[in-house]
Amino acid sequence: MASINSNFLKLKAGYLFPEIARRVKSYTENNPDKASRIIRCGIGDVTEPLPAAVREAMHIAIDEQADRSTFKGYGPEQGYEFLRQAIVDNQFANLGISADEVFISDGSKCDTGNILDIFGHNNTIAITDPVYPVYVDTNVMAGNTGDANEKGAYAGLLYLECNAENNFVAGVPSEKADLIYLCFPNNPTGAVATREQLTAWVNYALANKAIIFFDAAYEAFIQDPEIPRSIFEIPGARDCAIEFRSFSKNGGFTGIRCAYVVIPKTLTASADDGTQVPIHQLWSRRHSTKFNGASYPVQKGAAAVFSPEGKQQVNELISHYMGNAKLLRETCLSIGLKVFGGENAPYVWVGCPEGISSWEMFDRMLQQAQVVITPGSGFGSAGEGYFRISAFNSRENVQEVCRRIREQMA
Amino acid sequence: MASINSNFLKLKAGYLFPEIARRVKSYTENNPDKASRIIRCGIGDVTEPLPAAVREAMHIAIDEQADRSTFKGYGPEQGYEFLRQAIVDNQFANLGISADEVFISDGSKCDTGNILDIFGHNNTIAITDPVYPVYVDTNVMAGNTGDANEKGAYAGLLYLECNAENNFVAGVPSEKADLIYLCFPNNPTGAVATREQLTAWVNYALANKAIIFFDAAYEAFIQDPEIPRSIFEIPGARDCAIEFRSFSKNGGFTGIRCAYVVIPKTLTASADDGTQVPIHQLWSRRHSTKFNGASYPVQKGAAAVFSPEGKQQVNELISHYMGNAKLLRETCLSIGLKVFGGENAPYVWVGCPEGISSWEMFDRMLQQAQVVITPGSGFGSAGEGYFRISAFNSRENVQEVCRRIREQMA
Repeated sequence: MASINSNFLKLKAGYLFPEIARRVKSYTENNPDKASRIIRCGIGDVTEPLPAAVREAMHIAIDEQADRSTFKGYGPEQGYEFLRQAIVDNQFANLGISADEVFISDGSKCDTGNILDIFGHNNTIAITDPVYPVYVDTNVMAGNTGDANEKGAYAGLLYLECNAENNFVAGVPSEKADLIYLCFPNNPTGAVATREQLTAWVNYALANKAIIFFDAAYEAFIQDPEIPRSIFEIPGARDCAIEFRSFSKNGGFTGIRCAYVVIPKTLTASADDGTQVPIHQLWSRRHSTKFNGASYPVQKGAAAVFSPEGKQQVNELISHYMGNAKLLRETCLSIGLKVFGGENAPYVWVGCPEGISSWEMFDRMLQQAQVVITPGSGFGSAGEGYFRISAFNSRENVQEVCRRIREQMA
Repeated sequence: MASINSNFLKLKAGYLFPEIARRVKSYTENNPDKASRIIRCGIGDVTEPLPAAVREAMHIAIDEQADRSTFKGYGPEQGYEFLRQAIVDNQFANLGISADEVFISDGSKCDTGNILDIFGHNNTIAITDPVYPVYVDTNVMAGNTGDANEKGAYAGLLYLECNAENNFVAGVPSEKADLIYLCFPNNPTGAVATREQLTAWVNYALANKAIIFFDAAYEAFIQDPEIPRSIFEIPGARDCAIEFRSFSKNGGFTGIRCAYVVIPKTLTASADDGTQVPIHQLWSRRHSTKFNGASYPVQKGAAAVFSPEGKQQVNELISHYMGNAKLLRETCLSIGLKVFGGENAPYVWVGCPEGISSWEMFDRMLQQAQVVITPGSGFGSAGEGYFRISAFNSRENVQEVCRRIREQMA
């Protein structure tokens, strides 16, 4: 008799975004006259056109497929050299990362989930609260947790609470962790970690022979030159960290799909018999056995992000979204709300008015202002009392959202 | 201290295709005058241009990304409705499969590997020998096997020997299996299963509450109208089978990346507590948590495979490759070799001359004819004494290969 992976049954049924969709649907059905007024600032998805340089490169790559002399079949599973080298030259110059330490994929969600394939089941896993739900759910699926309690916290995970007191940046814990998920700039809070804070984490990982999963998908939004863009800016990180990056939010690739993982060859972890095994070797084997390379035209498009035109077009996109974030921050501050994030990240993290829960605020914003936000409690119990506004939108929509917030919420 | 998944250390170091690449490299370095004569009929990768209808659809999809009103961000993780419906209409008409039973992905290699995420570790797993190595290696990684013996067979797997006596189609075993990998048309042998043979497998699976993983990546090459193209042509299969399909070999998508899995909603397996859980629900959760949808322009390209122009262009590609297969078959037969496959599949599976091993034949073909083939033993110990010739090539190259085989090998 075939049997399933019963760990899946521990997953909470109501995932955040389906519940948001359900409430929006119910509201529009009951208020059809308001349906056209709804502005979505919920899910963190880009809205502006794909850069011209990217489109041009993809067109050329597709035309190459018309002739057998330039046709591309299976590419290298790790990704084409032209893209891996462009990434290293443009994103990791002087950080000691080589092109063969970069693995191209079709998305960071896949990478951050799949990475668990190569690790054992006895690791203590540290996760911030609030957090991107994929980190938690993939550990549940892999059998790295027990059951969830009534607050949605899973037994066996080490939760690192982020709150206004620590400015939503978790410090190193007193307990030992083996695998640590850090995301900076943070989704959902928009928080960034300073060099000192990251150094403390790298030192903690080195001392505990732990590995940091550093999710830098929002790196491009960092405005403050003092904030590290890569964990590999921190001495010692080559021996204790993996970095996840994506073209989704800088190049607007959420529908095109391209991301990458950086795994230094010096990074090792322990086998059951105590030998130290290079993580690079394991991921390389996993990647070539369970993945067949990212789409060739997509990789060509990704490489164009680093062309002079591509860089300028990406900068314009980032400026656009960060301009939106500034307007949203200022508006929420102007009506007396507590505001975090939005300065080095496309997410503004806002405290609800006194005594109002995240989901109550969600309903109020939907019903009074027809604006969809994301309730902070959906990212973990420490997110209760907050909501996230995404800056991914047109300027016109963001200006209208700001007008409504001032008018309806003040 | 971080620990690895030590099951990875059970994997055999020398994977087939890297070893082939090593021998070809060594030969060309020692015989630089012969390097330009080498013709590769080893790896099963398409060689001919991407159909014009596909390229045209991809160009249009990329142009849509230039305007925010037609820009596509995150798509549905399960795939766009336009593609899922086109698949059902064109590939599963009258087989009782609905569009929401189809999950789009970026490749069958990923799908056949990732599917193990949703199954438990106590299943008895049946695998044919010879076999596509990914089925075996992903089970090793998942901890579903013990160690390999000196022949490369892993403890705990139920191997189903395929040989000349059973025409390389395994019959149902006397033992009970829980998960069964079947691939028809077969890679590497090119064998196809009759309706009666598949019916026996479906009945076996139903009787044992087992699940068949039916890999139909080469379905488009079936010429014989009596041979089932889908496991869902067999009554009862909806309750015991998952089918894997791909655009790689019909549409020439090996570098573009698109595939899909069909999971009937009626298919269930047992949880630890004995309840029957729908596999569709588990895969849906896995897919939406660890995958973020296939590239939008790629899905548009895949849908174009089903347009009238696309169908005609795919038919021309299939005719071309099957014409190659016919030439290769006839040539090998003409020099007195035993030949299998190549009639409903792009692979010709050839018995080595008496007393010559697979790798000896590989070396002989490389050194005497400068033709790269794949040694059968690389697909499992039952493949010893055979070699695979891929029909994926230009007609010119295949004619030259045939000429050399007749001249050098006879």
